[in-house]
Amino acid sequence: MRLVVQKYGGTSVGTPERIRNVARRLVETQREGCRVVAVISAMAGVTDELIKLAREISAHPTERELDILLATGEHAAVALTVMAVNALGGRAISLTGAQAGILTDRNHTNARIANISPKQIHELLSDDYIVIVAGFQGQTPEGETTTLGRGGSDLTAVALAGALNADVCQIFTDVDGVFTCDPHIVTDAKKLDELAYDELLEMASAGSKVMQSRAVEFAKKFGVEFQVRSSFKTSTGTIAKEATPSMEDVVIRGISLDRHQAKLTIAGVRDEPGVAGRIFSNVAAAHIIVDMIVQNASIGGTTDISFTIHEDELENARKILMPVVSEVGAKRLNTAGSVAKLSVVGIGMRSHSGVAARMFECLGRGGINIQLVSTSEIKIAVIIDEKDAERAAQLIHAEFGLARLMPAASTPEPPSAS
Amino acid sequence: MRLVVQKYGGTSVGTPERIRNVARRLVETQREGCRVVAVISAMAGVTDELIKLAREISAHPTERELDILLATGEHAAVALTVMAVNALGGRAISLTGAQAGILTDRNHTNARIANISPKQIHELLSDDYIVIVAGFQGQTPEGETTTLGRGGSDLTAVALAGALNADVCQIFTDVDGVFTCDPHIVTDAKKLDELAYDELLEMASAGSKVMQSRAVEFAKKFGVEFQVRSSFKTSTGTIAKEATPSMEDVVIRGISLDRHQAKLTIAGVRDEPGVAGRIFSNVAAAHIIVDMIVQNASIGGTTDISFTIHEDELENARKILMPVVSEVGAKRLNTAGSVAKLSVVGIGMRSHSGVAARMFECLGRGGINIQLVSTSEIKIAVIIDEKDAERAAQLIHAEFGLARLMPAASTPEPPSAS
Repeated sequence: MRLVVQKYGGTSVGTPERIRNVARRLVETQREGCRVVAVISAMAGVTDELIKLAREISAHPTERELDILLATGEHAAVALTVMAVNALGGRAISLTGAQAGILTDRNHTNARIANISPKQIHELLSDDYIVIVAGFQGQTPEGETTTLGRGGSDLTAVALAGALNADVCQIFTDVDGVFTCDPHIVTDAKKLDELAYDELLEMASAGSKVMQSRAVEFAKKFGVEFQVRSSFKTSTGTIAKEATPSMEDVVIRGISLDRHQAKLTIAGVRDEPGVAGRIFSNVAAAHIIVDMIVQNASIGGTTDISFTIHEDELENARKILMPVVSEVGAKRLNTAGSVAKLSVVGIGMRSHSGVAARMFECLGRGGINIQLVSTSEIKIAVIIDEKDAERAAQLIHAEFGLARLMPAASTPEPPSAS
Repeated sequence: MRLVVQKYGGTSVGTPERIRNVARRLVETQREGCRVVAVISAMAGVTDELIKLAREISAHPTERELDILLATGEHAAVALTVMAVNALGGRAISLTGAQAGILTDRNHTNARIANISPKQIHELLSDDYIVIVAGFQGQTPEGETTTLGRGGSDLTAVALAGALNADVCQIFTDVDGVFTCDPHIVTDAKKLDELAYDELLEMASAGSKVMQSRAVEFAKKFGVEFQVRSSFKTSTGTIAKEATPSMEDVVIRGISLDRHQAKLTIAGVRDEPGVAGRIFSNVAAAHIIVDMIVQNASIGGTTDISFTIHEDELENARKILMPVVSEVGAKRLNTAGSVAKLSVVGIGMRSHSGVAARMFECLGRGGINIQLVSTSEIKIAVIIDEKDAERAAQLIHAEFGLARLMPAASTPEPPSAS
């Protein structure tokens, strides 16, 4: 009998009506002859409300207690989903992360899964239960509740699918799958039938918030194939899997935009060991998340270091860095808000030369200036002006023929973006 | 070192500001040299909201899942309270009912406490923690979450105080203590300094919703003295304890009113074994809660059986009883809504004769008709017209001199009710 793990996010269980929809889908899946494990997130908005409440109580909420507080969101959602299944005449039971056998390290609010003991789930499945597991949570060896960080329910689902040796892992969400680009930006963006873990990873870290990165990393490490699909439609979504040779036929898989970024450049930094460390340890101590870091070859013993952060952190970062700049004897600090990171991603890059050149030429023809460049093996990212961001995405989407990749049966092909 | 158990109800932790107040009180109590265990209810309104959500999902929510759902209310409240204590520089830790060692039977949504293993609480107290326990919940021997029924946090507090052999158990609530009568009805009602468990039990079951009855029964069984006091004031409340001989000097301790009652009389019932059983098993099967039952001596082989229920259930009960009345060959069913139960309670009754006569005469002088009478060893209850209820309470309060029992320093003695 096939074993299916289905994950439903907060939007999919955001109202009683939507919870009933999820319940119907679970019952149908079981009636089709599957054993069903569901992983459920807190109802949309609940986690944010709980965090807000905690912040009203304390500027620095105790992390152990924050985990207990946040875990209640998923506890409530699984209990309600079980009630909905049972109201349909189904047979379901809820499990907390702890009861599901999800053991984590002791890193409260951002714990890592150490081990999964799926014995109880197997027993309940044998008894024909639809097993509904609270996402986003586990417990330490001492039995303390932990949470897995934002988006952690994805990780719960993938990890359970791996531990249970599930036949399918389906991530239900409010989008139809993974697209070549955000359809709000590129109207002829196409849903991808499949992509490699690495591509999804690069697209996730590049601002396509389809899946939690750690969940994808976990899936890659343990070879857990999963589908990303809509909880409101029956259409198949996108399958994330090991890279196959045929995947490399496609030059680039997709385009991601990270907007509202800021760029900082420390110019005239002495090219000596330890200087970069001092700069970034100060930034890290202020909990500012640094994305891209670019350092060029030194000329005359000094170099320039550039990096990007979220625009909201710019003032804060400037305050922190001004003293550091003089301390390390750098010449000056230049900053600019309102920039965007545009990334093109594809494992095909490895076997197709000239992708960067083609991308840069395309932007050049569009009169779009490239401010920073950074690459990984399967990604090329550039920093450009925020005002050029959408047009750049449209131009590159057309340049690499992404819209024509998979002609969609349902939507007529719109004219390519100008 | 003194060990104090404090219980805070939903109103006392209803907002972030109130949670901070509770935290301040806990820290102060510890600084005064006490070991502190707090039992916390869900924030006001949360439990009702969760029940509403469950009912939107299912007309008959699975009880196991309802317990998981409802327990989240207390989980969130204890986590927030710990954060508030820690934000004040205190040292607190939260425990679920299960972690606090509260073992119950398997009766979901209305479980009974079977045993308490307070080892972990003792250890945490030795480490100078303020231990904050989720009220209203426990776990079965199999580790399933259970809840203790409405008002169950009172039971958690009293049971923990017993198991920990606490020096004091303080039930903080939104009233100043237990009064001779509801001060909204009798303006010169006085707060009682102490009363016997049995008196509080009779007053609780008679509509003075100060404490959960099962908590008082538990306290009586294990001799756990407790205080009922306001969480918003520092004034001492009312101590509930074993009856002492001096308590009997007072004829009656207090007056309770149960309003919105309905009275049903089945007239001409054959005085045979099994007839009453058939009547009330039908009522019970419809989950209608019956309060007072009165059956008088039979005359000519038939008798009348009267009982009271909540007014809202009257139509339902009538429908159920109509066929039963003819089935058992009774003459007819008389019903009346808009009646009230007035109870006078006091262990002093046992040694003072003529209490009932004095009460009936008082009502008679007021022109108030008595429709039913029922008594226990320390209580006399009468059914009267709803419209007479407040005046009856005022008359009896004055008749038995309750206002003069304990002259309050803070409030001037108002003239006795007319």
